[in-house]
Amino acid sequence: MIELIYEQPLNEKIRSYLRLEYLREQLLDNLNHDHQHRCFYPLFSLCELTERCDYRSDVIKDIDRQLQQLRIEPSASNGDRLIKQQIDSLTIARDILNQPGRLGSHIKQDRFLSALKQRFGMPGACCNFDLPQLHFWLAKPFEERQQAYQEWMKPFTPLLDTVSQLLQITRSTADFHPQVAPAGFYQGNSEHALTLIRVQLTAEQGCYPTISGHKNRYAIHFVDFEQQKHTDKDITFQLSACR
Amino acid sequence: MIELIYEQPLNEKIRSYLRLEYLREQLLDNLNHDHQHRCFYPLFSLCELTERCDYRSDVIKDIDRQLQQLRIEPSASNGDRLIKQQIDSLTIARDILNQPGRLGSHIKQDRFLSALKQRFGMPGACCNFDLPQLHFWLAKPFEERQQAYQEWMKPFTPLLDTVSQLLQITRSTADFHPQVAPAGFYQGNSEHALTLIRVQLTAEQGCYPTISGHKNRYAIHFVDFEQQKHTDKDITFQLSACR
Repeated sequence: MIELIYEQPLNEKIRSYLRLEYLREQLLDNLNHDHQHRCFYPLFSLCELTERCDYRSDVIKDIDRQLQQLRIEPSASNGDRLIKQQIDSLTIARDILNQPGRLGSHIKQDRFLSALKQRFGMPGACCNFDLPQLHFWLAKPFEERQQAYQEWMKPFTPLLDTVSQLLQITRSTADFHPQVAPAGFYQGNSEHALTLIRVQLTAEQGCYPTISGHKNRYAIHFVDFEQQKHTDKDITFQLSACR
Repeated sequence: MIELIYEQPLNEKIRSYLRLEYLREQLLDNLNHDHQHRCFYPLFSLCELTERCDYRSDVIKDIDRQLQQLRIEPSASNGDRLIKQQIDSLTIARDILNQPGRLGSHIKQDRFLSALKQRFGMPGACCNFDLPQLHFWLAKPFEERQQAYQEWMKPFTPLLDTVSQLLQITRSTADFHPQVAPAGFYQGNSEHALTLIRVQLTAEQGCYPTISGHKNRYAIHFVDFEQQKHTDKDITFQLSACR
């Protein structure tokens, strides 16, 4: 049985966070597996996203909110180690993120990377003759390329790690509970504002959820993958509605 | 010692062929290695290229030219097996490529693929919530995904295989000969029209070539990778100038 988790953000901020978290996972995966030239896709995507929008102010506001909450929680005064750790890492992240400077400027200033970045958006445009420097670079040992990649990632790490931590906190605000979607449809309401819907179900049911909604109301439609249309089966799944 | 080969097309047709060959290699690599969602990049690139330009008429003209040449070569009448094989495979390819129908229409008509294709051009837009169907698909066993991928590749195969064969014939028109580029610069001339310049050199020299030119004249500048500028060292390399 393969259990899959699908997530749907209910506001723009969580939507951005999930996008950054997804890119973070891609970057980390490229450190562990040699995906050749493909390793540049998430790096350049991240550049474009952080160029369009400086996520740091949102993240810093969230850090402050979390710090305030962690400090008033009774377990914190009891010296709960995990919470102390969270406070420490959030405080450090806050300081780093407050430093001036544009994110991603190191990529723009690198002649090798900026030449690649220009071509990666075009179809099939990473040929030997388009980018001989890439052909040269890819012949280096993987360890050497890993090191370079780590350097390129580094300036993004405080933002990405914090976003990942904030999402973990969001996810921890609710547990999974079993539910049934009669004829593949489920609707949920909440008195308090929600930010993230999580649906867990087995791949063997042959369906994936499409989720829509806003902070107080959401709907889940289950789609049959093979038929690419709404299923009429009853779907059992686990639901977690996070604040 | 790592020997690297760099190629530079000297006309638009060979440029397109090299691009298609590059995508062919990517597609084949995706059949052998599980690059997860990354496998879709070359597939969608190929779709876009073949949508913009129907390469088949160029390829058919080239097949006819090759067939004519192979048939008048003395070794053909001597029953040379390799040449007979080439004639056979080119004749079969010609028949297939002459069949009507738009290349890549099967991708457009596939709801799963066309949904993915729409999002793959956007930075970081293959998240779980952007494409839950992709999340579902990626959880399938690799063998199952390989099979699907093979089906998606199939309609492109006659074009791609023939292009690869034509490029091999082009490459076989000249051998590599040792050359020196004093202070990293080399210039070449040819009385007969050239189509492809090939440069082979060791990665240990720390340089890659940038090649420019047209059918009768070409120049090679060697660039130091670390300094990202023209080298002033003498570079020894192997050169092949193909017709």
